[in-house]
Amino acid sequence: MSEYKAPIRDMQFVLNELAGLPDIAKLPGCEEATAELVDQVLEEAAKFASGVLSPLNKPADEEGSKWNSGAVTTPRGFKDAYKQFIEGGWNGLQLPPEYGGQGLPRIVSTPVVEMWKSANLSFSLCPMLTTGAVEALLLRGSEPLKATYLKKMVAGTWAGTMNLTEPQAGSDLALVKTRAVHQADGSYRLHGQKIFITYGEHDLSENIIHMVLARTPDAPEGVRGISLFVVPKFIVNKDGSLGPRNDLKCASIEHKLGIHASPTAVMIYGEKGGAVGYLVGEENRGLEYMFIMMNAARFAVGLEGLSISERAYQQALSYAKERIQSRDLSGGGKAVPIIRHPDVRRMLMSMKSQTEAMRTLAYVVAGAMDRMRHHPDKEERARNQAFVDLMIPVVKGWSTETGVEVASTGIQVHGGMGFIEETGAAQHLRDARITTIYEGTTGIQANDLVGRKIAREGGATAKAVIKTMRALEAELGKGRGEDLDAIEASLSAGIGALSECVDWIVAIYETDVKAVHAGSVPFLRLFGIVAAGWQMARAALVAHRRLAEGRSEKSFYEAKIKTARFYADHVLAQAPALRNTIVRGAAGVMALAEEQF
Amino acid sequence: MSEYKAPIRDMQFVLNELAGLPDIAKLPGCEEATAELVDQVLEEAAKFASGVLSPLNKPADEEGSKWNSGAVTTPRGFKDAYKQFIEGGWNGLQLPPEYGGQGLPRIVSTPVVEMWKSANLSFSLCPMLTTGAVEALLLRGSEPLKATYLKKMVAGTWAGTMNLTEPQAGSDLALVKTRAVHQADGSYRLHGQKIFITYGEHDLSENIIHMVLARTPDAPEGVRGISLFVVPKFIVNKDGSLGPRNDLKCASIEHKLGIHASPTAVMIYGEKGGAVGYLVGEENRGLEYMFIMMNAARFAVGLEGLSISERAYQQALSYAKERIQSRDLSGGGKAVPIIRHPDVRRMLMSMKSQTEAMRTLAYVVAGAMDRMRHHPDKEERARNQAFVDLMIPVVKGWSTETGVEVASTGIQVHGGMGFIEETGAAQHLRDARITTIYEGTTGIQANDLVGRKIAREGGATAKAVIKTMRALEAELGKGRGEDLDAIEASLSAGIGALSECVDWIVAIYETDVKAVHAGSVPFLRLFGIVAAGWQMARAALVAHRRLAEGRSEKSFYEAKIKTARFYADHVLAQAPALRNTIVRGAAGVMALAEEQF
Repeated sequence: MSEYKAPIRDMQFVLNELAGLPDIAKLPGCEEATAELVDQVLEEAAKFASGVLSPLNKPADEEGSKWNSGAVTTPRGFKDAYKQFIEGGWNGLQLPPEYGGQGLPRIVSTPVVEMWKSANLSFSLCPMLTTGAVEALLLRGSEPLKATYLKKMVAGTWAGTMNLTEPQAGSDLALVKTRAVHQADGSYRLHGQKIFITYGEHDLSENIIHMVLARTPDAPEGVRGISLFVVPKFIVNKDGSLGPRNDLKCASIEHKLGIHASPTAVMIYGEKGGAVGYLVGEENRGLEYMFIMMNAARFAVGLEGLSISERAYQQALSYAKERIQSRDLSGGGKAVPIIRHPDVRRMLMSMKSQTEAMRTLAYVVAGAMDRMRHHPDKEERARNQAFVDLMIPVVKGWSTETGVEVASTGIQVHGGMGFIEETGAAQHLRDARITTIYEGTTGIQANDLVGRKIAREGGATAKAVIKTMRALEAELGKGRGEDLDAIEASLSAGIGALSECVDWIVAIYETDVKAVHAGSVPFLRLFGIVAAGWQMARAALVAHRRLAEGRSEKSFYEAKIKTARFYADHVLAQAPALRNTIVRGAAGVMALAEEQF
Repeated sequence: MSEYKAPIRDMQFVLNELAGLPDIAKLPGCEEATAELVDQVLEEAAKFASGVLSPLNKPADEEGSKWNSGAVTTPRGFKDAYKQFIEGGWNGLQLPPEYGGQGLPRIVSTPVVEMWKSANLSFSLCPMLTTGAVEALLLRGSEPLKATYLKKMVAGTWAGTMNLTEPQAGSDLALVKTRAVHQADGSYRLHGQKIFITYGEHDLSENIIHMVLARTPDAPEGVRGISLFVVPKFIVNKDGSLGPRNDLKCASIEHKLGIHASPTAVMIYGEKGGAVGYLVGEENRGLEYMFIMMNAARFAVGLEGLSISERAYQQALSYAKERIQSRDLSGGGKAVPIIRHPDVRRMLMSMKSQTEAMRTLAYVVAGAMDRMRHHPDKEERARNQAFVDLMIPVVKGWSTETGVEVASTGIQVHGGMGFIEETGAAQHLRDARITTIYEGTTGIQANDLVGRKIAREGGATAKAVIKTMRALEAELGKGRGEDLDAIEASLSAGIGALSECVDWIVAIYETDVKAVHAGSVPFLRLFGIVAAGWQMARAALVAHRRLAEGRSEKSFYEAKIKTARFYADHVLAQAPALRNTIVRGAAGVMALAEEQF
């Protein structure tokens, strides 16, 4: 099994030459993100990821988190790694300095988070959930709540969770039943059961701060009657010290396909009279607050698709270079490393190109997140906000679906050894398989994309993005050689397919919403493939220029062009077929009566 | 978790209306396969599959097979199920009556084997391996070997295995090192290690008969120096009773991603002086014999793709009908079963249509297997043999790759519950994941397809098959309504894509074999999609005729048309894009130097 090595050079390429780090570092509030500091952060993070987190990934998967009478023990090594993690200040990397964070822009924290998730996905979920809870409090928490919780949570001394799901309420949060009853002292008492709570109970932090969705007794039905509460594991005394245990417990943890080290808890609130909770913001607006946070959480899960792909690719590559089997097709009597065989090469290129494609798209969106917050120009902020809103479901849905595919290909490269757990390749598929489900399934992302993000605004942002893509297409088509010509042709067909589908969605959403939803997941895939193809084409163009300038790193830039070429022929090439499926395929989806299944 | 229910009506439809069971039952040697008998066999098999094998599937996965000091204990219930299985005569269903089998044609045994594999894949592997070993002995074993082993193996009292792989010799059997030394008494003594031996050791049968590839001391290097040996676990006395234990042992079993109940053994031969073995056929022709058997084994593994898809589909369907979540898009205030939501419907149709597509193709090939053996006309036999040879890698490679996809979609239909092992959906993905690897990876199938099966004969058989497809295309295009028009259009594009790729392969194989191999797996996928699309179009046409005739089962036949329509728009629609990838995509595959990865 190979240990993870952060692909720093690839990350720098995307940050600097595609995602606009140098410009972002000039924005007010982002000035700390100098090239020097960013390189230093990446190097330190890479050390921690490779040296501490990566070696724990496999043993922790084997051991798993263990439940015993309500307490959860994380696998050996996790406690110490978490201690080092928070001591290193990593927990607050992107969180505000006023609460002890580093305040670095998203474009810097994104590659760092990518590293944590590549090195040890299960571990990374604890700080990810804490960050989500911190962001909810930052956005809508009262000053006393912020004062009580934020410093400890930013430091990581206390961890956070998000409690949404209940047995009858998964994708459909309208069905949430957990009750919250107002008390004379301003607090609430909560009663109910939550499931699928990632790190709902564990031994890494001194306290766990649960963000819980619940209903007050006279709340309206449906999603407009849900409120958000802070429910700490240990009640916090006025002086900030930990008081008694709150009335909540972890009833069990799930036996899952993957992310074994990350405890997925069933939580019971209020068995002994009610768990003490504190309202965040206003009553009945909990879902709205959750949705504000959701962008960040969905983006982070999108990164998991990229991260697992990178890890699976590194492992498959290492095996393909070492494993000797069969002769080279071009002759020679001896068996050679399997990387010489075209089909193995195809699998590796498929893994490599899609991993790079996911990275370009994710980092470009991260850059837009910084611009939407920090750009001095209001219109620029709005433009970037619209782009981010549009792309979040794409990054989440497409990257995670692709991550599952890449992890599965990683097994295939190993042949029989890939099926043996000892090899470690299978873990990546097991771990990846949750990413298309949690924080909203691919279907939920796709509905968000076609409904809220496209149809609702008549496709305005999508059309603007397509216009930008067309500008690149025009730039590419200038006789820069066979590779760029092939990329241009494939991109052109892809943009055409995407554009037709956007028009189709806008045209029929009102009259035939089911037809749009019947093709929403294929459309999300088309959008991801084309948007990342656009970024890969940009990468190829940049590389072409660097080579023309006679820059060093010839081999590096040449590989960027060839990888984009592969992506164009093997991935982007699927776009026209997807267009046909989306526009024509609804009839077959809804044709059968339920009893015909 | 839903128990498996054999889709008998669907099976009968394919057997009778697509695969030609009524005609096959008229062939000499197949006369027993009357409609009445086949229905009876299917019903009895369905009972056994649902009542005995299916309920063991999940508990056996949880328990796994256990190794202890060389002995392997299969999960609770397996021993009893196996006893019932062989007592019911199921082990010899397709094996020759002269050794106690039922001698039924492949077209009858195929749906039965599909049932075993749907109900309990791990269990099904033991009789599958026995069948493989029996076929090797039937084909090339000496009369004394046949007399000693076959009756017991056909009955299932003794099981069989295939021992090919060694640590350094996986796909590349040229690297086999196990030695076999000739003895004065005509037997051999074997020394060596074999890995990945399915049911290499277990407690189901009284004896285990290993078919082992090994080299004699003066054998030529490479694949032309490999011989095939029978190596029994217990030496068989002259009177047929069991003698002493042979010098072989199971050193360990693997901890795998899936098929936990099926022991995958590391076998050590000859630690104490040499395992007694008996040569099958002639020295140095072992690989050739293995390849004769391989067609049957690869076909059987191809069925696994179909079988797991059927099981995963049934489970997802049952969940989708029960799970209440979110309102219907067309309005109404209450949450509805998720089968009403278009994206869930799309996933179910994708599972259903691809499962049915795999079944049409597999049964049609099974029918051709019977014709190639039993047809009185020599040319018909040859034509069917060529068709079978061409289609085996397609059935194996495409069905298993599709099976992995369908099993993964089954998880997705379950949302978060799909990731919890208790639900049972995840097991199907874990189990399916081996099928694209064992009995030759998809890459190996694809190389076989483009090289031995197409290029070597100038594409003759492939072109003949395409001609048959075109005849159907012409028949379809006669204004039979929107669904059949859409199917015709998609099939026409698919046939065109396939035809162009066959021409391209034939044209450049000699001059640029690497380019062909770079696209061989996408080509295999294209071939599978189009060939099954052809069969689905036949199914739609048959259904259209039945409806026009005013037959009963209107709903059944309508569903066949709609399902073919979905397949055409969502699966077959991918063909043109695959053609582009195959024909243009080689440049990107081989462009990077090894150090650029």
